[in-house]
Amino acid sequence: MREVAIIGVGMTDFGELWQTPLRDLYAEAVVSCLKDAEIERDQIQSAWMGCMSSGLFNHQEHLASILSDYAGLRGIAATRVESACASGGAAFRAAYLEVASGASDFVIASGVEKMNDGADATFCLATAADQEYEVYHGVTFPGLYAMIATAHMHKHGTTYDMLCQVAVKNHKHGAMNPKAQFPMEITTDTVKNAVRVAEPLGLFDCSPVTDGAAAVLLAPVEVAKALGKPLVTIKGSGQAVDSIALHDRPDPSRIPSVGMAARKAFEHAGVTVRDIDVCEVHDCFTIAELCCLEEIGFYEAGQAGGATLAGETALGGKMPVNTSGGLKSKGHPVGATGIGQIVEIYEQLSGLSGDRQVSGARLGLAQNMGGSGGSSVVHILEVK
Amino acid sequence: MREVAIIGVGMTDFGELWQTPLRDLYAEAVVSCLKDAEIERDQIQSAWMGCMSSGLFNHQEHLASILSDYAGLRGIAATRVESACASGGAAFRAAYLEVASGASDFVIASGVEKMNDGADATFCLATAADQEYEVYHGVTFPGLYAMIATAHMHKHGTTYDMLCQVAVKNHKHGAMNPKAQFPMEITTDTVKNAVRVAEPLGLFDCSPVTDGAAAVLLAPVEVAKALGKPLVTIKGSGQAVDSIALHDRPDPSRIPSVGMAARKAFEHAGVTVRDIDVCEVHDCFTIAELCCLEEIGFYEAGQAGGATLAGETALGGKMPVNTSGGLKSKGHPVGATGIGQIVEIYEQLSGLSGDRQVSGARLGLAQNMGGSGGSSVVHILEVK
Repeated sequence: MREVAIIGVGMTDFGELWQTPLRDLYAEAVVSCLKDAEIERDQIQSAWMGCMSSGLFNHQEHLASILSDYAGLRGIAATRVESACASGGAAFRAAYLEVASGASDFVIASGVEKMNDGADATFCLATAADQEYEVYHGVTFPGLYAMIATAHMHKHGTTYDMLCQVAVKNHKHGAMNPKAQFPMEITTDTVKNAVRVAEPLGLFDCSPVTDGAAAVLLAPVEVAKALGKPLVTIKGSGQAVDSIALHDRPDPSRIPSVGMAARKAFEHAGVTVRDIDVCEVHDCFTIAELCCLEEIGFYEAGQAGGATLAGETALGGKMPVNTSGGLKSKGHPVGATGIGQIVEIYEQLSGLSGDRQVSGARLGLAQNMGGSGGSSVVHILEVK
Repeated sequence: MREVAIIGVGMTDFGELWQTPLRDLYAEAVVSCLKDAEIERDQIQSAWMGCMSSGLFNHQEHLASILSDYAGLRGIAATRVESACASGGAAFRAAYLEVASGASDFVIASGVEKMNDGADATFCLATAADQEYEVYHGVTFPGLYAMIATAHMHKHGTTYDMLCQVAVKNHKHGAMNPKAQFPMEITTDTVKNAVRVAEPLGLFDCSPVTDGAAAVLLAPVEVAKALGKPLVTIKGSGQAVDSIALHDRPDPSRIPSVGMAARKAFEHAGVTVRDIDVCEVHDCFTIAELCCLEEIGFYEAGQAGGATLAGETALGGKMPVNTSGGLKSKGHPVGATGIGQIVEIYEQLSGLSGDRQVSGARLGLAQNMGGSGGSSVVHILEVK
């Protein structure tokens, strides 16, 4: 396999962008990515775009055609991939494999989701769970993650203060991110006093409904070296699926697909969790951040909550997590999230993160997850 | 890039399978594929599944998780891809690239669509066109292909008898295919006397609404050689996108994405159209078969209709086209169609096609298309 590097990134603002159609979101991210890479459109050979549910959100499928067309990329190979909220991570892996194979040199990996378009977002998102065995009986995602939280609290003594601190910490990071949907600091009281969504989770335990797009451009390392920029390479890639339904898992306090994907990525990269300097994990709900940190191996089961309260996962702590603001503060346009994470890690490794910079970060990890963990994708990036 | 071979195939019946849920369709195709390949489930590392619109047809996204889970494949990497009716071809290309890259040895490429599930199929399918600039104004796919047919007739003198013969020929082939949805012969009068759908196209110019799934297993050539079966390799792969909207194309009688994808595949394979012994093309409407044959280069523009009337594209003719029965007779479960085409070419090259066998076929081509040609995928297979 050829070594692959990221040579440019682009991202829209994340937020309620009522005036911006799906195709414009994509085009804005791709055009800014190509500008960042200083690569012309006619050099692009292929594109992979992650999107969860443009069919239900926007009554538009066939994204490979419509988005490439609108971005001025007719003639390229292009494919949309979907793995619910892990669609962006899956698109990144597909693009990585294409460049690694030698089939193409310049390949765009992107993600896009237009969630504010009139559709019922809760219904659309629920199609990432088992429609016949979960959703039919009335459960949606806040309910599923509330069950995970309850099981985690029961098994490990995890407290609601620990969950609150995930939200407080991520909003503190997001307040420094000009592209974040909710760039304001909050307090533990904000989280505690918010309306309950599904006990024990309240409004501030939940990531928002968001429009947005992000894109990165991949190329062989030899091409990247000639550009004279920081050389950020893809050192490890891992992906895994598990049972889609929570009730089919032996332990509802755990999300095994995250650990399976992480182990594949670490093995591929030849590094361990202790080598990672900065990471983005899939905090669709506050409890999810704790579960993901434990599954990846940053902490033993039941230990991530205490570490979060102690400030270890905040900027300045020993393992900064979700420096972008995470899904909670930056926003969660579901198909775009996985690429948004890659953008953050790329900028951290390139020293471009401004006030959010993790000093001396050399190795970063991005973990993206679908549904209640039915699928996960983990990538490890390195700056050389 | 590593050389890649197909080492097993599986396919459900195509038809109105009201009693068979989406996940069962997938599992049946995958289980029969693994049985054909004599490979155990725990050897599978990855899967790519093409599906156009399970969100709209079945209110179920996150197929990578739910389908792998139900097929007993937890733990693998799995990703759904979507490119409207070219989703199957796109999934095949993604799986091919993964094996070619060296990342994985045993990778499933599949396609599945459950179209008879209560949803409005015409509405769901129309999301493959430009929702805001075509569908909003009332056009759906029969209307779009009727415009292509009218333009083709106007420009080239193509007659309705020529279109009728596409349907008659494909039904004659399909009558020999035990998995076909409509395995019966028809006459020109059947086509002419059928109810009109969108002038000049009648009911028998249109492919049906179908449930079905198909799967193939890919592996490196070295692995395939050890199995002692006919060695069917992937010699060329090409994919291209074009404008999604018909009105954005300079000549509405043409479908340029097909030619772009075919030229990439021929260049990759190092062969020409004259080397092909058997092919499956995307006859979603009778006119589409003629356009595709011309774009690929089997015939000059405007010549495919006459050749069809002369019997050249029928079994026994000099260039047998859609020996499976094509989308018209075999059926068109949109996400599965591209893989169904690969299954037919694999069986032709392996000498397994029974009454439909093209004698001595060494090189086959499969061409899959999305929407009114907004995307196309072409693969060239060779038996060694």
